[in-house]
Amino acid sequence: MFESRSGAVSVFLPSLFCERGTAAGSRWSGVSGCPCSLQQRLTWHRGYLVVPGGEGSQMINCVTFPLPGEGPEQQLLKPNEWSYCDYFWTDKKDPQGTTSVAGFEVLLQKQLKGKQMQKEMAEFIHERIKIEEEYAKNLSKLSLSPLAAQEEGTLGEAWTQLKKSLHDEAEVHLKFSNKLHSEVEKPLLTFRGDNFKKDLKKYDHHIADLRKQLASRYASVEKARKALADRQKDLEVKTQQLEIKLSNKTEEDIKKARRKSTQAGDDLMRCVDLYNQTQSKWFEEMVTTSMELEKLEVDRIEWIQQHLRQYTTLRHETDMFNQSTVEPVDQLLQSVDPAKDRELWVKEHKTGEVRPVDMDI
Amino acid sequence: MFESRSGAVSVFLPSLFCERGTAAGSRWSGVSGCPCSLQQRLTWHRGYLVVPGGEGSQMINCVTFPLPGEGPEQQLLKPNEWSYCDYFWTDKKDPQGTTSVAGFEVLLQKQLKGKQMQKEMAEFIHERIKIEEEYAKNLSKLSLSPLAAQEEGTLGEAWTQLKKSLHDEAEVHLKFSNKLHSEVEKPLLTFRGDNFKKDLKKYDHHIADLRKQLASRYASVEKARKALADRQKDLEVKTQQLEIKLSNKTEEDIKKARRKSTQAGDDLMRCVDLYNQTQSKWFEEMVTTSMELEKLEVDRIEWIQQHLRQYTTLRHETDMFNQSTVEPVDQLLQSVDPAKDRELWVKEHKTGEVRPVDMDI
Repeated sequence: MFESRSGAVSVFLPSLFCERGTAAGSRWSGVSGCPCSLQQRLTWHRGYLVVPGGEGSQMINCVTFPLPGEGPEQQLLKPNEWSYCDYFWTDKKDPQGTTSVAGFEVLLQKQLKGKQMQKEMAEFIHERIKIEEEYAKNLSKLSLSPLAAQEEGTLGEAWTQLKKSLHDEAEVHLKFSNKLHSEVEKPLLTFRGDNFKKDLKKYDHHIADLRKQLASRYASVEKARKALADRQKDLEVKTQQLEIKLSNKTEEDIKKARRKSTQAGDDLMRCVDLYNQTQSKWFEEMVTTSMELEKLEVDRIEWIQQHLRQYTTLRHETDMFNQSTVEPVDQLLQSVDPAKDRELWVKEHKTGEVRPVDMDI
Repeated sequence: MFESRSGAVSVFLPSLFCERGTAAGSRWSGVSGCPCSLQQRLTWHRGYLVVPGGEGSQMINCVTFPLPGEGPEQQLLKPNEWSYCDYFWTDKKDPQGTTSVAGFEVLLQKQLKGKQMQKEMAEFIHERIKIEEEYAKNLSKLSLSPLAAQEEGTLGEAWTQLKKSLHDEAEVHLKFSNKLHSEVEKPLLTFRGDNFKKDLKKYDHHIADLRKQLASRYASVEKARKALADRQKDLEVKTQQLEIKLSNKTEEDIKKARRKSTQAGDDLMRCVDLYNQTQSKWFEEMVTTSMELEKLEVDRIEWIQQHLRQYTTLRHETDMFNQSTVEPVDQLLQSVDPAKDRELWVKEHKTGEVRPVDMDI
């Protein structure tokens, strides 16, 4: 029975849809089967209707699992992929062991945490931006300082360029902070807006509703199971009365009791099928949705990776551009020339080049 | 007369000493000459002693300069070098034209300004150091932030390294600021201590004293010149008396007057020679000292050039080391792997991989 489902499940995995589509159709028509399919399993023993019990399975929070070691071997839906759809079937008791959390909740919490991490990375980048802006502000302020502005000649030119280079450095860091904002902070911040959390809530409610439905259908099964048991008890009593010939119209009663017993059996069959339909629906949704969440997490990691790479690219650029701010200073320092500076200064400040001569009488 | 001095001057220029040393010796013996050398220039005309006046020269602040266009052509002491020793002979009227500043003062002011520039450059570097320290402080503070610290798996490792890289950057900038302090700021600040200004004062006083001495010796020359004029007038009167035979004992008087007149001439000669000696001394000191100041300025420019080069070297280093802080981040970003991260997370958080089965009767 399970193997066919595991095949059917794949209907809901886009990645596998192509090859299993048809097989799936036939399988699901089987689930909504009518009680007649069951009739074959009802048998008569010494005049009693015998109904087989739910052997080899266990109930956990209204979900039916095979007993350990019993039932056919289960293969993973996506072996070697550590896919979400293979590892979150059981509910999880919280540390206190009081309440239990659905496996699906664990997946949702991972998504919420991922969203939070992304937000905090954007905050971190924002702090870096503020540091760069402050640094740039201080550098360009200093570059305007009048210190040693009266230095003259070629040395004066080199000094002026050195001061200017601080302004160029400031520009480089300002450009860095601007690009950090538009190319790293903003993408990290805006990736998956507020709709994201709404979407997660929708998934959450959808899966939770199916679990509630499953619980109520399980209740009906139990109720039907009890009704059938009562009917069988009644049939048994009537049959004994016939043997000791207490009444003459018991033939009729027995026929009636047998009919009601059969009907109760049919009711139980219907309840069990409805329960199984709901469990199947929950199963399918669990698989489909967890696959979607898995995809979302891959996207998140790749998006963050991409934008942290952009961060390092911008950092490299900054170091590169910074180098270029020093080069003009180097060049002017190369051409500093004391003799040239003396010539310039002397030409401007000389007082007189006629030398004194001896006094004559 | 001047050419020999300009040659002699070179005695005081170490750079030229070798080739002119001997010539110099002979020349200076000439300056401290005794009056006899002058006797040849004293002549007798119609019985009067004729003393040539100080023709072809002019007095400026008690210094004797040749009249424009007169006297032999002057060659520069150090042609094509724009040497201080060639261009600061005249005093300089200040803008208001009230007081005048000695050419030597202009050279001293240049030295003081140079010292000030050097000090201001050190201040500028100090400001840069403070900016680097602040930047480094902010970076390493941010690197310790807990933001997104719960990111997991390979992405978590890359993120942790990215945060750590800010601490490494901070170290680079701290190293930069430390080296700026020890290798740029300190040398600029300590180059030429307070003794430097004391030395300049000594030069200043020495040259100023010679100028005072020159002034007083010029005064004596003028006094002696007047005394000689009086003597010559007296001789003239006596000679007239002799011609009109007013007295009989005038022969004696004339002899006496002629003797006194000759003596006054000799006095003037001596005063002129003393004046010239002092002017020579001042001249020599002017040349020697201005050459020293010129050397000091060359040293200052080269010292500053050398340490500003150290600044750019440190800047280049900083950009280089900064690059290396990003590389480990790049590597870990390379190996970010969503599948691996899912495996790690699923292994830790999975709730159960046994899938539900259909309920049996």
